[in-house]
Amino acid sequence: MATEQKKAVVLLSGGLDSSTCLAWARDNGYECYALTVSYGQRHTIEIDRARQVAKTLGAADHKLVTVNLGDIADSALTNPDAVVPKDRDHIGSPGDVPVTYVPARNLVMLSLALSWAESIDAHTLIIGTNVLDYSGYPDCRPEFLRAFEAVAQQATRAGGFEIQAPLMDLHKKDIIKLGTSLGLDYGMTISCYDPDPKGAACGHCDACVLRRQGFEQAGVPDPTPYMKESHDD
Amino acid sequence: MATEQKKAVVLLSGGLDSSTCLAWARDNGYECYALTVSYGQRHTIEIDRARQVAKTLGAADHKLVTVNLGDIADSALTNPDAVVPKDRDHIGSPGDVPVTYVPARNLVMLSLALSWAESIDAHTLIIGTNVLDYSGYPDCRPEFLRAFEAVAQQATRAGGFEIQAPLMDLHKKDIIKLGTSLGLDYGMTISCYDPDPKGAACGHCDACVLRRQGFEQAGVPDPTPYMKESHDD
Repeated sequence: MATEQKKAVVLLSGGLDSSTCLAWARDNGYECYALTVSYGQRHTIEIDRARQVAKTLGAADHKLVTVNLGDIADSALTNPDAVVPKDRDHIGSPGDVPVTYVPARNLVMLSLALSWAESIDAHTLIIGTNVLDYSGYPDCRPEFLRAFEAVAQQATRAGGFEIQAPLMDLHKKDIIKLGTSLGLDYGMTISCYDPDPKGAACGHCDACVLRRQGFEQAGVPDPTPYMKESHDD
Repeated sequence: MATEQKKAVVLLSGGLDSSTCLAWARDNGYECYALTVSYGQRHTIEIDRARQVAKTLGAADHKLVTVNLGDIADSALTNPDAVVPKDRDHIGSPGDVPVTYVPARNLVMLSLALSWAESIDAHTLIIGTNVLDYSGYPDCRPEFLRAFEAVAQQATRAGGFEIQAPLMDLHKKDIIKLGTSLGLDYGMTISCYDPDPKGAACGHCDACVLRRQGFEQAGVPDPTPYMKESHDD
């Protein structure tokens, strides 16, 4: 008799990191329940991409939770009047919290993942945080994830939850090498803070700059569709 | 020059407990930011009542966050096909988690409160959990709230958040005495799991039974509008 496959809830934004997490989870034998949280970002093309990634990677289920975090959280990512930074020389230096930080965002997302996990008897939550390229975000650090495991133990009936963050110690180029080795088509994924309606990337925002550098440094051809005017930068 | 008033985010469902918390917070000198989280409960009359309570008690602001927790969380409170228990002899004995438990609900709600708090430079979150009447819910215990303070420290840029749970050690009758002493009109509040469209209470669900007993034991006239058929029970 086959052993029952272990279940994991995988937070999936449709971006490069979380899509790599899903590929990693599948490769590590998890039955994957992909959760996309829409929290008032200014573009929704990510949600379509998340659906496509979940389907392509054979997730057992994919759910979308919407929460109007933008009505309460002050951030350039959720405030339509804020300017998302572009072409910054340096991204995420220690102690420098980017304006794209959304207060308590990862706590909200993991809490939702935990609610689903307890409901389906999954005990693993997988999140694509990494501390090397995003050291400025407090809720991307291992200390945060350990504190979340502790609160999850107290917050639930079931207890016994673990967080996996397989990208934690990887630079963008290593994440791209990992996903590529697992056959992930990064052309499906979207990282840009300010894409056009068809999902073409601006090429200039923090997320685009990190991603472009990652492909260059990994020596992997960049399949990202860029807007025409930024293609030759 | 007047000292700046300390700010608190108060979770406000429109029920008896959370409304008492708001009255307590005001009495304790907090500038109150009331947050109502609508997570797929089967009735929305609570939201109207929360608005009324926030306005009457002079909250500085009142926000509504909606999250479709019912699509992921398995619970009698969010599942339209589930039967909400009525006329149980005993409620919330230790180790007995009620079917109305919503997985990780208080963690989700406090995470949202934290996001707002960090955005407005508030450092206090106030929640109406109490361990005596609801000992069956894991996320109503002091251990959970302490673990939440620890994760809040790691999850945010600001840090330094505290949770106040002024009802923690109070029985329902004592909560009612507290709110009454602060001038709170409990006729505005609603506790029933299954009210009619005008907000009349069923009188039989766990929440109604606890509330009715509370008024009786407090020796305070019960201002709750009950449905006609249950009024003479």
